Amino acid sequence: MEAKLRELKTLLAEVNDLESAGAVLQWDQETYMPTGGAPARGRQMATLARLAHEKFTSPIIGKLLDQLRRHEESLPADSDDASLIRVTRRDYERAVKVPAEFVGKLSEHTAATYQAWTQARPANDFAAVRPLLEQTLDLRRQLADFFPGYEHIADPLIDYADFGMTAQTIRQVFGELRQELVPLVQSITAQPVADDACLRQHFPEQEQLAFGATVIKRFGYDFERGRQDKTHHPFMTKFSLGDVRITTRCREDDLGEALFSTLHEAGHALYEQGIRADFEATPLAGGTSSGVHESQSRTWENLVGRSRGFWEFFYPKLQVAFPEQLQRVSLDSFYRAINRVQRSLIRTDADEVTYNLHVMIRFDLELQLLEGQLAVKDLPAAWHARYQSDLGLCAPDDRDGVLQDVHWYGGVIGGNFQCYTLGNILSAQFYESATNARPEIEAEISAGKFEALHDWLKENIYQHGRKFTAAELVQQATGQAMTIAPYVRYLRRKYGELYRF
Amino acid sequence: MEAKLRELKTLLAEVNDLESAGAVLQWDQETYMPTGGAPARGRQMATLARLAHEKFTSPIIGKLLDQLRRHEESLPADSDDASLIRVTRRDYERAVKVPAEFVGKLSEHTAATYQAWTQARPANDFAAVRPLLEQTLDLRRQLADFFPGYEHIADPLIDYADFGMTAQTIRQVFGELRQELVPLVQSITAQPVADDACLRQHFPEQEQLAFGATVIKRFGYDFERGRQDKTHHPFMTKFSLGDVRITTRCREDDLGEALFSTLHEAGHALYEQGIRADFEATPLAGGTSSGVHESQSRTWENLVGRSRGFWEFFYPKLQVAFPEQLQRVSLDSFYRAINRVQRSLIRTDADEVTYNLHVMIRFDLELQLLEGQLAVKDLPAAWHARYQSDLGLCAPDDRDGVLQDVHWYGGVIGGNFQCYTLGNILSAQFYESATNARPEIEAEISAGKFEALHDWLKENIYQHGRKFTAAELVQQATGQAMTIAPYVRYLRRKYGELYRF
Repeated sequence: MEAKLRELKTLLAEVNDLESAGAVLQWDQETYMPTGGAPARGRQMATLARLAHEKFTSPIIGKLLDQLRRHEESLPADSDDASLIRVTRRDYERAVKVPAEFVGKLSEHTAATYQAWTQARPANDFAAVRPLLEQTLDLRRQLADFFPGYEHIADPLIDYADFGMTAQTIRQVFGELRQELVPLVQSITAQPVADDACLRQHFPEQEQLAFGATVIKRFGYDFERGRQDKTHHPFMTKFSLGDVRITTRCREDDLGEALFSTLHEAGHALYEQGIRADFEATPLAGGTSSGVHESQSRTWENLVGRSRGFWEFFYPKLQVAFPEQLQRVSLDSFYRAINRVQRSLIRTDADEVTYNLHVMIRFDLELQLLEGQLAVKDLPAAWHARYQSDLGLCAPDDRDGVLQDVHWYGGVIGGNFQCYTLGNILSAQFYESATNARPEIEAEISAGKFEALHDWLKENIYQHGRKFTAAELVQQATGQAMTIAPYVRYLRRKYGELYRF
Repeated sequence: MEAKLRELKTLLAEVNDLESAGAVLQWDQETYMPTGGAPARGRQMATLARLAHEKFTSPIIGKLLDQLRRHEESLPADSDDASLIRVTRRDYERAVKVPAEFVGKLSEHTAATYQAWTQARPANDFAAVRPLLEQTLDLRRQLADFFPGYEHIADPLIDYADFGMTAQTIRQVFGELRQELVPLVQSITAQPVADDACLRQHFPEQEQLAFGATVIKRFGYDFERGRQDKTHHPFMTKFSLGDVRITTRCREDDLGEALFSTLHEAGHALYEQGIRADFEATPLAGGTSSGVHESQSRTWENLVGRSRGFWEFFYPKLQVAFPEQLQRVSLDSFYRAINRVQRSLIRTDADEVTYNLHVMIRFDLELQLLEGQLAVKDLPAAWHARYQSDLGLCAPDDRDGVLQDVHWYGGVIGGNFQCYTLGNILSAQFYESATNARPEIEAEISAGKFEALHDWLKENIYQHGRKFTAAELVQQATGQAMTIAPYVRYLRRKYGELYRF
């Protein structure tokens, strides 16, 4: 059995190598590739995706998994080997349902769409990407149809990202949360909007990036196992457990853009860098779900990075980095500025409270597209209508409307957006458990130290990789199933203090 | 037959995708990869190399080549299709002799050795790379032995780089050239060494890189189909005909370093960017031999970039870029500085005349290593002995001795170095033909224009890719076989004028 397991691991490492190579090609495409490289790059990434899929779905792996079933059953379910076999089988059974040719086609289409979007967004030209988006929708519906028996067509797509969740379960959680958020947003926006002019001065890019790097180094992000570059849309990507990279974008007229995206992506990266080294190049070496992943980016960006304690330590340093801009701005004003709540048009600029409303709009529109209730040609209008009804706002164009997020133009419709709000919910639930278990966390943060929090997260979440499902992990780490209560408590307390209600 | 040919092209494109992906991973390793990424990166590149080799040597390709033999024979030999089939068959027959497992091992070993060298060179620590280099030698001997029947063990390795050449033919050419060079070097070095202090002031990196980019844009290097980054050792790499990148290294105390390496690598890139677009992703889409490739880097670096005419146009611009450093340096002094001839320790810093002596040392040492006449442990001493006897110099350490070049530490012993001198020889032969055919070339260069030269090179060399062998190409483009005469004429004329003999 040991020999069979070793054979399986060798084959899985080969699949991992092909996937990792694809990730490098994608990172390069989004960071440094000249435009002339686009056509071949799409084909190259498609070939890698197809070959990885072919290798992973080969009957040899299926046979090994069969042969290893007895071995798996003889081991405790939470042993490393049993977990590796179980998770590999789950992935395998999903992967064999999708033809390799389809995977290659989807990958090639994704590259073409992404490239078109990088030009269409600045040109405010939805028409240019519309046919590509129609193809994306078609391909995603085809993908869902490889998994017959679903209740909702989005379910198989959601399952990829957040194993165990469905359109129905998410709608329910979102419904509960919405009932809490709507009055909260009303209470806050009834009051005068906080002044964030202090963030909208001129901040030279180099100093911004240097400050962000200093912060995430203190978080524990290891620059010897990662690096940061600039892209249209910030992201985290992993080429191995020793090479977990992040990207950011910078605006010299907005201090928040690079800073908070850096903390956000660093949160994702801390998760991946914290996975046990001996899971390298196996299916266990990854985050267990998109929601749990997002909980970590939100933890470091919001629960830590927008907290008063954090800025008690870092604000004097930020003032040293930008003395002209900030020496006359008090910590209180700065803290209010970075936590300003306001109905707005851009998801990635949105505050912690209204952010979830942006997510819910996208989630609902995705479902409608997949259901066939909404045509791609009507998407811009539907977008505007929902922003009008939910946020009372109308985008002046598609650039800041339906073209604002990369996701749909990255070849993915369905299973995309729920993770952000699940992440918000889980971040507060994990954080509450962490601070209960390690009461020193908040005092440490106010002293610019993050060991207690980072250690708790590594121990309870990061190290395990995909060994446990999101549901199992949440139960183990917090003693209960996912619940919105800590998140609602967190928002009420923080914004109650800020807005005195 | 058309269907068979299409099938072949599809399979070849897949192989090309895997090879190109490997090239991206290697470029990333040498430009931006954090150190923590090294172990997995080695494995990933090895997997890609092995899979590319497996795919290329699959019996399906062999069978298609057999089935296409008739078709090939029915076509003119210089037709695109016949050339594709012929060149593919030549590569295939070579590749099937090497087991895929060996290819993967060599690739993984290369990554490990390169990584070790990047640390051993600054530490002046030959001992640290010695065991790896012994393995390299062993692997290269094994590689040669997959091609039994050779006259010299280096022949199969030389054949990879410079198809049709052998240790014997190169020794002969090098012998002839040496007879011309030795008295030339003596005549020059009998006179006072030119003063190049003007190049050794402080030149800020950004301005250096910007100036180099301006020049190569005028050459015709297309930045929409390429880019430039910094590495330990400059190189050119291609991910597709639309993405041909170069790298450089910069020293703020030496104006020549980045500038001439930029012109050199741009020469390689102009060749690749000039290949016919419809050869994309086939074995025809590359330079026809290392020697011809090198002839192009030497053309743009030396014949153009170190010519007086070139600097008549560009020197005033260089003075504007570096006014403090150069406003009191005359064009004549500058021209003498960049063409200073001096026996020196470092190949890449060597002038046009002595450069070939550096190459001959390395070529001879490679042959001795492969023959088993020289052990790796004795290589540093042999290196010092040859520098003493051939150049009358003794390196103070291995950093500037046997550790100076990446090649051996890039996993290649044998077939490495001959191309530089073949390139010098061919550059002058091509250039003489070009200026005979287009007499306006030199006047254009003095006006900062390069269309006539670039057009002649594209028409006679670049566009053809690997369609013709080096020997065929030289014959077609210059009307005769390779000859050292134009190169010797060029050196005598240029350095005769400079040193007045």
